[in-house]
Amino acid sequence: MSALPGLDDLATYRADKGRLGRALEALPGDFPRPEGAFPAPYGVVGLGEGWWAAELLRPRFPDTLAPGTTFVLAGGYGLGRLAGLLAAARETSRRVVVLGFGPEAEVPVPSSPLTPYRYLRYVLEATGEAELGAEVDRALSRERERLAPHQKSPENPAKLLAWGLLERIPLWVTGPRHPFLAQALQQVFARIAKSLSIAPPPAALEFFITALEARHEQGDPLVGVVAGDDEEVRLAREVLATRVDFLEELAPPEAQGPVPEALAYWYRLAWAAYYLALLYRQDPGDHQVLARLREAAE
Amino acid sequence: MSALPGLDDLATYRADKGRLGRALEALPGDFPRPEGAFPAPYGVVGLGEGWWAAELLRPRFPDTLAPGTTFVLAGGYGLGRLAGLLAAARETSRRVVVLGFGPEAEVPVPSSPLTPYRYLRYVLEATGEAELGAEVDRALSRERERLAPHQKSPENPAKLLAWGLLERIPLWVTGPRHPFLAQALQQVFARIAKSLSIAPPPAALEFFITALEARHEQGDPLVGVVAGDDEEVRLAREVLATRVDFLEELAPPEAQGPVPEALAYWYRLAWAAYYLALLYRQDPGDHQVLARLREAAE
Repeated sequence: MSALPGLDDLATYRADKGRLGRALEALPGDFPRPEGAFPAPYGVVGLGEGWWAAELLRPRFPDTLAPGTTFVLAGGYGLGRLAGLLAAARETSRRVVVLGFGPEAEVPVPSSPLTPYRYLRYVLEATGEAELGAEVDRALSRERERLAPHQKSPENPAKLLAWGLLERIPLWVTGPRHPFLAQALQQVFARIAKSLSIAPPPAALEFFITALEARHEQGDPLVGVVAGDDEEVRLAREVLATRVDFLEELAPPEAQGPVPEALAYWYRLAWAAYYLALLYRQDPGDHQVLARLREAAE
Repeated sequence: MSALPGLDDLATYRADKGRLGRALEALPGDFPRPEGAFPAPYGVVGLGEGWWAAELLRPRFPDTLAPGTTFVLAGGYGLGRLAGLLAAARETSRRVVVLGFGPEAEVPVPSSPLTPYRYLRYVLEATGEAELGAEVDRALSRERERLAPHQKSPENPAKLLAWGLLERIPLWVTGPRHPFLAQALQQVFARIAKSLSIAPPPAALEFFITALEARHEQGDPLVGVVAGDDEEVRLAREVLATRVDFLEELAPPEAQGPVPEALAYWYRLAWAAYYLALLYRQDPGDHQVLARLREAAE
């Protein structure tokens, strides 16, 4: 490979054909605004791209279908599951709101690696949780200050993280405070950096301690990326210290509460994945890559 | 590495110090029998090792805590979470049954890669679902006929699968019929074969199509292991065909219904992981490997 692109060099950003960098910078506050009032109680169900937002909302709205309003975060590749779900929701709920990019979507949310934020924010606004939504936005805005391209490499944690992940396979280490964060990071890292990473199964400690025991020949070295500080994370870090090439400890975001924290970690990794895509000379967007899926799923 | 051990050679099985092979053969029917009657309605909650059984039971018992009996599938590394959960369960439920290997366990289920079956079977018997339990056992017994060590290599699908996975990284491909199977396979493969594998996040198609795009240098090649035949699995297979080294298609098990099917796939992969551990000259059991975790978590 020739010399790697410089992340402080404007020319590098020409590879960002779909302008994902601009979307990342504009993200805090960039979501569809709900109109009118939605009858309570609320249910949330997520398909495809919508899965993580639905899980983040689950502690507030334990039901999938609710008698008041059911929000269907539909993504766009329903593959026949959406039709059955919509029929059930319309049977149960006074109001059904479908968000996504398929033909059934009433609120358009175009396909993008960044939609988890948009689905989440819409539902928070529509359900009287605007204050939590504002805290998410504050957390993301604070992250953006340090992560956007105008911040030069030594002061930009996302650029540094991208260098740390280069030609390595991340192993996401999160704790019970953020039950779905590892999979959300796996997803955004794939869609932006176009690279594999490993999210552990739910009994993560048993996995970390056994899965690296045989360690047959491996090309790309592993790097444990650690988010959070509860007892499980501390134990996992101790277990992994002797088993991976190195650990990247993510500094705790300035954010109040588990949902803003999770979104801040995710946004930071989205930026790191963006810079990593540029180092790999890949388009950080995925519109072209997903074209084949759109055709196949239609 | 010297010549690989022969899987039809008795001497190879000496590496199985904890006799996991015997436990695998004895598994269908090997679970603690519930005694007495348990008041309905039922709730199920899973921690650590108990997570998958709880998810398999979720469609039947949507509640975690229920007013009648709550079954706590506790594993053994509760790390403080168990105490709070038990207090809440005792507040809510007439009866709380704790299964696992920690000091709180009323029904002992010693730590093992095979406990998902045991947790599941106990709860099925205790909740009037014995017929479904019997179908699980029939499915596993049918698998055992073809997978146990006395079946020589060319006729033994698990031995063949072990050879196919040797020095490769499996990528588990499952569909919405089996929502947690990929993570269950990732777990059992780690605990027995002592090796890493990759379970996709919930929006699996978008992951498969993007995560392999940058494909920087990788040592161990990837193999897609495909279980099931719904539309998502078919699309994933098509996407992966040009992106991984090869696809291993698992023959559908002879089993009635999603739960027996899922257990049959899991049991087959447990056998394949067992043979793979032997090829790697590893003890297929994990009692020794987990000793450090037991110390740290006490």
